[in-house]
Amino acid sequence: MATDKLDLVFQKIDDLATHFVVDRLAPAVKIPSISSDQTLEGRKQVYAMTDFLATQLGGLEASVERCPLGIQPGTDLQLPDVIIAKYPKVHDSKKKTILIYGHYDVQPPGDGWTTKPFTLQEKDGKLYGRGSTDDKGPVLAWLNALEAYQQAKIDVPVNLIFCFEGMEESGSIGFAAFAKSHHTLFEHVDAACISDNYWLTTRKPCLTYGLRGINYFNLTIAHAGVQLHSGMFGGCVYEPMTDLVILLSKLVNSQGHILIPGINELVEQVSTEEITDYATIEFTTQDFQNTIGSDANIYDNPEETLMHRFRYPSLTIHGIAGADSSSDQTTAIYPKVTAKFSIRTVPCMNQEAVTDRTIRYLEQEFQKLGSKNTCKVELFGESAPYWLGSKDDSNFTAGKAATQRVYNKGCDLTREGGSIGVTLDLQNALGDKSIMLLPVGMSDDGAHGPNEKINKENYIEGSKLLGAYWWYFANP
Amino acid sequence: MATDKLDLVFQKIDDLATHFVVDRLAPAVKIPSISSDQTLEGRKQVYAMTDFLATQLGGLEASVERCPLGIQPGTDLQLPDVIIAKYPKVHDSKKKTILIYGHYDVQPPGDGWTTKPFTLQEKDGKLYGRGSTDDKGPVLAWLNALEAYQQAKIDVPVNLIFCFEGMEESGSIGFAAFAKSHHTLFEHVDAACISDNYWLTTRKPCLTYGLRGINYFNLTIAHAGVQLHSGMFGGCVYEPMTDLVILLSKLVNSQGHILIPGINELVEQVSTEEITDYATIEFTTQDFQNTIGSDANIYDNPEETLMHRFRYPSLTIHGIAGADSSSDQTTAIYPKVTAKFSIRTVPCMNQEAVTDRTIRYLEQEFQKLGSKNTCKVELFGESAPYWLGSKDDSNFTAGKAATQRVYNKGCDLTREGGSIGVTLDLQNALGDKSIMLLPVGMSDDGAHGPNEKINKENYIEGSKLLGAYWWYFANP
Repeated sequence: MATDKLDLVFQKIDDLATHFVVDRLAPAVKIPSISSDQTLEGRKQVYAMTDFLATQLGGLEASVERCPLGIQPGTDLQLPDVIIAKYPKVHDSKKKTILIYGHYDVQPPGDGWTTKPFTLQEKDGKLYGRGSTDDKGPVLAWLNALEAYQQAKIDVPVNLIFCFEGMEESGSIGFAAFAKSHHTLFEHVDAACISDNYWLTTRKPCLTYGLRGINYFNLTIAHAGVQLHSGMFGGCVYEPMTDLVILLSKLVNSQGHILIPGINELVEQVSTEEITDYATIEFTTQDFQNTIGSDANIYDNPEETLMHRFRYPSLTIHGIAGADSSSDQTTAIYPKVTAKFSIRTVPCMNQEAVTDRTIRYLEQEFQKLGSKNTCKVELFGESAPYWLGSKDDSNFTAGKAATQRVYNKGCDLTREGGSIGVTLDLQNALGDKSIMLLPVGMSDDGAHGPNEKINKENYIEGSKLLGAYWWYFANP
Repeated sequence: MATDKLDLVFQKIDDLATHFVVDRLAPAVKIPSISSDQTLEGRKQVYAMTDFLATQLGGLEASVERCPLGIQPGTDLQLPDVIIAKYPKVHDSKKKTILIYGHYDVQPPGDGWTTKPFTLQEKDGKLYGRGSTDDKGPVLAWLNALEAYQQAKIDVPVNLIFCFEGMEESGSIGFAAFAKSHHTLFEHVDAACISDNYWLTTRKPCLTYGLRGINYFNLTIAHAGVQLHSGMFGGCVYEPMTDLVILLSKLVNSQGHILIPGINELVEQVSTEEITDYATIEFTTQDFQNTIGSDANIYDNPEETLMHRFRYPSLTIHGIAGADSSSDQTTAIYPKVTAKFSIRTVPCMNQEAVTDRTIRYLEQEFQKLGSKNTCKVELFGESAPYWLGSKDDSNFTAGKAATQRVYNKGCDLTREGGSIGVTLDLQNALGDKSIMLLPVGMSDDGAHGPNEKINKENYIEGSKLLGAYWWYFANP
């Protein structure tokens, strides 16, 4: 019986739980593999994490290949290698093949920690540490599953191709080019799975089949002059900050409605089926308020909240560079100020249409001001398109079965409001093969923030979940 | 003949010019007396400057009193002493008495210097260094004048009371209280003179009889929650930055017109006499564009530019704290953002009316947004009221005569757009006694910026100017 063999794997995972925490997650968290640190010393820590992961995979009888990505543009730093590990070492053509993506770099720790960020610490069933949930915990959960299969002497029912990168938190520099140029790697792949996101709540697992895209803009207002004293010159010069806030105020209203003409028209109409689907997701306004830490929700209705997270666009103003951001009482007029804002895109918003309409609108609004300053609107970095996967294919069916088996309950089918650029890179490489996002951590894990954690239960049951997913993909 | 005696003083100043630069200004600039540096090490440099100045004054036979101001609130640092120096040591009741104010602290150097900021360097007749023109040069020019009188063996025709503080660049902390509690100091004073501003151009000296005031505001929009990811939450929470830029856009238009109802109504009507006066000031639009380094002037007419610098209010948005001010591609929604803006006030704007109307207006506009964020508008720091002195009394008559004598031309009577808070403190202490601002430096000196300089000619001729002012005040 299939379930009996999985029971043995699960039992082994329970037996090895302490080992998985102490000998695998703890030493991984100890390595501050911060990919945005552009010092050689910092980058060496990312390389150390590559070594750690390669050694772990080698110890599990996987073939390990380290794929160099070259020099990071604008630096003299070598990009950390993409690790490609295959298990079994020799492809078994009788089995289906799953590609597994994860990343082994982390965000900088930032302030506000109550524990040491790079020392895994258990407290009340929670494992605190940078990377515990994003993404070292989930990456190592795949390894835990493999080790449990081996120790339980159960044959892994699929071919596994692990693909782990070390620059995800820095925009996955080099990964798109890597995926494009390594198509043989993806030849035998039947489906792909990414475990790098979170449950929608703390109560119910989910599978994720969609992501919003992002167009990121810089809006710069400037004049050719120098920084001026507001006392000596205020009132007789065109002040860039004045023009900038006027333009920013025309982008989005307080209720989050985008005011750029022609943007909302690009959005796919809501179907009645969709409304029904959203109503089935277990999610309350209280859940949402707990997550955001306030009652600043725009919608009282949880379905509307979810639809605005998942399937409607949004526009956020992130900040202004070039003005005074201190809390001091300063009195300057700054000659060049740049606002950064981004638009999250959804089906069927054409990226270029979004860019063109945004730029044209701001330029027109600036003309209306009659200012002698200059206005420049431009895309910042590469835009990531939205992604929409299937949700009913054999990949998702396996995910649903695995969740039901491990958690003894169904899972919600969700989208994410954020953008995971590599999903698109992988989708492009895989063509019409299915990708599924299968989260291990919970909504309150606090990735990127201080006191990031993964619940020990999520780490251990998650290892079972990932192992069960292989099983049900092979045995639908 | 009066002029013969002054000729002897002037000749002595020319003879001592190198001494004044090398032995007085250079060692003063060498001391980085940055009052905003709140480290003990930094503050010690301010104390070192107190010592330097006290020693210099003692060497010129003045009585020197060091007046402690106590601890700086919010720190454990002793405020630098106010130096009160009297010359002659014993009050001569047959002579009139002039109070002279200056400050011996400086701004932080900031970036962009082409020389070492704390090493006085002469180049093309310009003396570069932090504090060279603001305000060490003018302060030491008073000492130069005194030394020249002494060496020329000409009796100084007035009693002098020097009042030099060390916190001017940090809001003159403690000075108002000092001035209030030391009224005996001001008993015999017939007039006061401050040399801490600049000519309107690089061609013609001026006397200054008015200053704008300043009301400085913090506008904070917040919700109780945490920092959020714009992908995961954009579109379903009230974003503080969105509300903030909408409110800021309602303060002032691109042409500098203040939009707060009831503010412009407080401004004194322009008289026909005033329009005539402004037309006589030597000032061109080209002068203005040279100073601001661009053609971002709002008014094509130089008189209108001057009126908007001197006698109309203005509103500047200085920056936003709490959002991302980096040039990185970040994606956060910040929970609490604070904009800083200031209104420059002019006759007859009641400070409290300005504050009340600004706060009420922003609160009303915020209500209209229907946001669940919170909005708080408050005054930041102490407001400085506008100041308007006389311009035809014996103090100004002496200033005009001194300028005519030294520069062989008339001077413009100007106001300043900036705020010098101590002027008000001194005016309050002096009652109806006249205060005059008598600048030594030029419009292009770049106080507060990088490459601050004073022309050597301004430093030397300025020493004559100040000495001549004493003379003509005693001998009208």
